[in-house]
Amino acid sequence: MKIINNIDSLQSLINNYLVANISNDISQDTLNDSMSYSLLAGGKRLRPSLTLATFQIFNDQLSDDVIKAACAVELLHTYSLIHDDLPAMDNDDLRRGVATNHVKFGAGMATLAGDGLLTLAFQWVADNQLDDHIVRQLVIEFSKAAGPAGMVAGQAADILGEHQQLTINQLQVLHSNKTGALLRYATIAGGIIADVDQNTLKLLAKFGEIFGLAFQIYDDLMDVIGTTAQMGKQVHKDHDEHKNTYPELLGIDGTKKALSRALGDAVGTKEELIKQTGRSFDIYDQFLNYFKF
Amino acid sequence: MKIINNIDSLQSLINNYLVANISNDISQDTLNDSMSYSLLAGGKRLRPSLTLATFQIFNDQLSDDVIKAACAVELLHTYSLIHDDLPAMDNDDLRRGVATNHVKFGAGMATLAGDGLLTLAFQWVADNQLDDHIVRQLVIEFSKAAGPAGMVAGQAADILGEHQQLTINQLQVLHSNKTGALLRYATIAGGIIADVDQNTLKLLAKFGEIFGLAFQIYDDLMDVIGTTAQMGKQVHKDHDEHKNTYPELLGIDGTKKALSRALGDAVGTKEELIKQTGRSFDIYDQFLNYFKF
Repeated sequence: MKIINNIDSLQSLINNYLVANISNDISQDTLNDSMSYSLLAGGKRLRPSLTLATFQIFNDQLSDDVIKAACAVELLHTYSLIHDDLPAMDNDDLRRGVATNHVKFGAGMATLAGDGLLTLAFQWVADNQLDDHIVRQLVIEFSKAAGPAGMVAGQAADILGEHQQLTINQLQVLHSNKTGALLRYATIAGGIIADVDQNTLKLLAKFGEIFGLAFQIYDDLMDVIGTTAQMGKQVHKDHDEHKNTYPELLGIDGTKKALSRALGDAVGTKEELIKQTGRSFDIYDQFLNYFKF
Repeated sequence: MKIINNIDSLQSLINNYLVANISNDISQDTLNDSMSYSLLAGGKRLRPSLTLATFQIFNDQLSDDVIKAACAVELLHTYSLIHDDLPAMDNDDLRRGVATNHVKFGAGMATLAGDGLLTLAFQWVADNQLDDHIVRQLVIEFSKAAGPAGMVAGQAADILGEHQQLTINQLQVLHSNKTGALLRYATIAGGIIADVDQNTLKLLAKFGEIFGLAFQIYDDLMDVIGTTAQMGKQVHKDHDEHKNTYPELLGIDGTKKALSRALGDAVGTKEELIKQTGRSFDIYDQFLNYFKF
């Protein structure tokens, strides 16, 4: 099979897989509408792209089973957005340029759509032809990254911290849970599926962590200097909601410097990976190009 | 290891495991309080008891790893109750005799507590010393039972069906998703962990389905003829909320007859299991004694 070596083609592949398969495992029509609505509302498919790109660095057999397991992280990411947007949480009306799930389907169905996507994510990771030991390792890492010592802990800290001033270290911990853990998982998942050795997996994890940090700094920065049209969601919300962000703590220039530093660390880790494995990691440059301002 | 051959002892064992282990995997204090609050608020521990009882019919080595995997279904069940009680869903104030999670922690934290329990459930199923092929099969069956072709589909049908009259067949489908799928899973999980053959697993699944049906008929019946003190939750809510129930469709006598019929089928399946495996299923009688009215 030909290697897919650019992000746009990976995004198309993932979109096609999601469109063709999401309804297979949903038996209730309105629930299907609600889950599909948010899942297929666009988005960059950054997480499964990172998994598939990483997998292909080590293995050129990109089967439907690999794609299915990789797409699970997009199901889970979409659930987190739906629940995050709920009236009881951030109460957002706009996401990826369209009305949020609860605006369209009501908060009850939106809660269930999130629950359904989260649960289905684990089904997609396990119900495929990958080896048992790979599936098991994916489920462990996935649940830890997304669970109450990972993403959900970050969300909890986020809603509790809205009206108190955090230090830069506390903010970093919050974000490494809320955003970083799942991006770290998305990176190592590609290595786990390709059955790489432990040392390589550790370096992939390091790259994923730094990538997650850069991602959050960039997201905070664009909330200040970006536009709604650019971002597909309301901007300047963080400040209005007294959220703790990098620009609030470091200023805009300080935030740009922190982002440059993170990107430098990412390139350094990429060099370590090349040295360790002897493989080309050129595709990672495309991911790092995401952080333009 | 000594076989634990009564339900009350299984319940104690499960409670002890949950109390000792729930906080290990939660890194945010308020989230921990919220998740622990609902998980440790009592409850009969019917589902993990069913798993452990079934496991012990085939295997007398009840290790901590088996208990951990079995307790995952209680985490998942608790999440479903927390989300079901939310203002956007059933809007219940009382559960297991105490204030519901969102009354105590707010709807945002309650949503996250549910999300955390659901995700942690998959971690507990996978992060243990059971064999890879067993863990993989558990994850597949667990996610299918709890997901958008199982429990979540039933919940969606339930909130959509509140103000329309269902037929008895439609009601049965709704309940087999909403309640039956997870009780079926709880039963077969014991067989999967004990690595039983496919024919035995099929009979266990049949028993679990019938048990689930009896459970829902009983629950509907007790909502009419039980008291709040007996049930630990508000009764007569179904009628007030125009929920579709067995008593509404069949009357009280008709519902009692349907329950007797389901219990007869359960005993019949138990006899088939004894014939198929040559083992004692006496412990199942204790579960069937649950349905007293």
